[in-house]
Amino acid sequence: MTKLNQLQTIINEQHLDAAYISNPMTINYLTGFYSDPVERVLALIIFSDHEPFLFAPALEVEAIKGTGWSFPVYGYLDHEHPFDLIADHVHQLAGNPVNWGIEKGSLTVDRLQSLEQVFPDAHFNTDLTPTIEKMRMIKSEDEIAKLNEAGKWADFAFEVGFNAVEVGKSEQAIAADLEYALKQHGINKMSFDTLIQAGPHAAEPHGATSGNKVKENELVLFDLGTIFEGYISDASRTIAVGSLNEKQKDIYQVCLEAQLTAQAAAKPGITAAELDKVARDIITKAGYGEYFIHRLGHGMGSSEHEFPSIMEGNDLVLEPGMCFSIEPGIYIPGFAGVRIEDCVHITTTGCEPFTHTSKELQTFPK
Amino acid sequence: MTKLNQLQTIINEQHLDAAYISNPMTINYLTGFYSDPVERVLALIIFSDHEPFLFAPALEVEAIKGTGWSFPVYGYLDHEHPFDLIADHVHQLAGNPVNWGIEKGSLTVDRLQSLEQVFPDAHFNTDLTPTIEKMRMIKSEDEIAKLNEAGKWADFAFEVGFNAVEVGKSEQAIAADLEYALKQHGINKMSFDTLIQAGPHAAEPHGATSGNKVKENELVLFDLGTIFEGYISDASRTIAVGSLNEKQKDIYQVCLEAQLTAQAAAKPGITAAELDKVARDIITKAGYGEYFIHRLGHGMGSSEHEFPSIMEGNDLVLEPGMCFSIEPGIYIPGFAGVRIEDCVHITTTGCEPFTHTSKELQTFPK
Repeated sequence: MTKLNQLQTIINEQHLDAAYISNPMTINYLTGFYSDPVERVLALIIFSDHEPFLFAPALEVEAIKGTGWSFPVYGYLDHEHPFDLIADHVHQLAGNPVNWGIEKGSLTVDRLQSLEQVFPDAHFNTDLTPTIEKMRMIKSEDEIAKLNEAGKWADFAFEVGFNAVEVGKSEQAIAADLEYALKQHGINKMSFDTLIQAGPHAAEPHGATSGNKVKENELVLFDLGTIFEGYISDASRTIAVGSLNEKQKDIYQVCLEAQLTAQAAAKPGITAAELDKVARDIITKAGYGEYFIHRLGHGMGSSEHEFPSIMEGNDLVLEPGMCFSIEPGIYIPGFAGVRIEDCVHITTTGCEPFTHTSKELQTFPK
Repeated sequence: MTKLNQLQTIINEQHLDAAYISNPMTINYLTGFYSDPVERVLALIIFSDHEPFLFAPALEVEAIKGTGWSFPVYGYLDHEHPFDLIADHVHQLAGNPVNWGIEKGSLTVDRLQSLEQVFPDAHFNTDLTPTIEKMRMIKSEDEIAKLNEAGKWADFAFEVGFNAVEVGKSEQAIAADLEYALKQHGINKMSFDTLIQAGPHAAEPHGATSGNKVKENELVLFDLGTIFEGYISDASRTIAVGSLNEKQKDIYQVCLEAQLTAQAAAKPGITAAELDKVARDIITKAGYGEYFIHRLGHGMGSSEHEFPSIMEGNDLVLEPGMCFSIEPGIYIPGFAGVRIEDCVHITTTGCEPFTHTSKELQTFPK
């Protein structure tokens, strides 16, 4: 059953006549076509008992047909009124659907009002955002294959990046080297801005790659990811430059133990909150609890902001196919920051990471 | 008067008690603080007669204070209920505001429902999106200075990119060279994915930089931009590789004439639609009208999707401070594509471009 059929089944179960799907990530998930229409209108209309259609800016119509979309696609020009046209197509294909599902988590208020205007007899009360988030949370084999491929390129980026590290070189120059090497291999887009932070700068987990230069005897944090056919990778490693003092070594080893222990504990049956606690307890027991200031992990797949969220208070039980990061960190202001992260997918017996770069403490330049 | 005071004045004129500002670009415009909170809540609350406050994820609070924001900022943790906290802060600072303005163009339906729940006596009928878009449309001197600086880096990128062109080299490899050079100068982020398209590939204006290799005797299209302190550049040039035939030269010269004539005509008093027509008439008269398949230009500033839109049907009269692209293009499927683009700001007497790379036909490698 295709994902589109699955959603159609859910629509029927919820006694809806139609669904207006507007989140570009959902459209990509259901159709294989991705485009960010920015201020223009892109929508997938699904019916309980008619074939669906895509509605898109005219410029996108050829690209949609090229993806193998086998149902109708209707385009509109900039000077046309998109919601009037949508209503015409809906009436023609499916009469006058009354109960609609919408994505309340991404549909904007003005567009809901436009829908209410062109469908004055309809109700838009049902929120499909949670349903779709739940569907997207369990990845198929095909999706996991793409995530593995994206992971390989993150491993490649680490290798290039670590070997580009030199004392006196800026974080930005290292990031430039690493992204240049990826582009030489046709990987043109990172899944987020590559983060390289050296020394005390790494203690700001919301900082950015800067002109800050690598110094002797410090830790350097890398957090990066690539995109492969719409699926991302996201991984972090922290390496040593020169020789480290005892405290630097200690925070590395504590963070590593937390990461490895949590990764070993990730399996069907444990809850997201319990998994967070596995890592957090190790860091807290070692005396660094106050420096681990974020959740253990986030769901990922087509983006790095999906479900499940691995954090305190989330009693969701992990299941095969769920994909998320395991990324404990210790950030001591003015001193240093360590983060070690793999994203994994839950299997029937445990979990498998998408990235395989060694997590043992490595020193560069070698 | 600050932009924040300006909006407060507008709120008073519209007899509103408060405004809930949620678009990160608007918050950046009004406060100087930019962050994309993704699934978390970031809001600026403005009152008709009390001081405003920012509400943000706890991790962002220090960064906000660092920007010089002089009013209160309240943080929240992942396991807290943001809208309950927002209501508490509002009640404490300003009692029980009834008439609220919201940004209907960006606020999602679920968040409006959250606001309606925590403020059951309030009305959220007024849409501030058009008001704010209008404010943002007229750029200040300070904003124009940043746009000029971003433009300089686009000129630099053209210079590097043109000199990186070789027969047999891929579009992607040229883009990699150009972005690497920018990173060496601390310019880490492009305002959009750099577009380089060689030969017939340039006839797909919605295509992407690919592994397609530059061949002898073709046109190569560059469309690129950088970001400087939150303001972008966006410019296109088309160059020749080897020697061109008459038709290639002709579409270049027609496109150039359209671009130069429109840029000379851009001044206070002309409408957006009239300006589009200036360029379109030249291309149509030369017999290529059917190949100019998009509007003449888009507004720009902090992003490349602002107002005014320079297109048929937009009777907006241009005013000093408006910033937009002038980018005629001719795309002949299977043959070649040309686009020549500067972004400009309207002055009291005409317009000034942000980019200055020569628009005469240049041949590379030199």
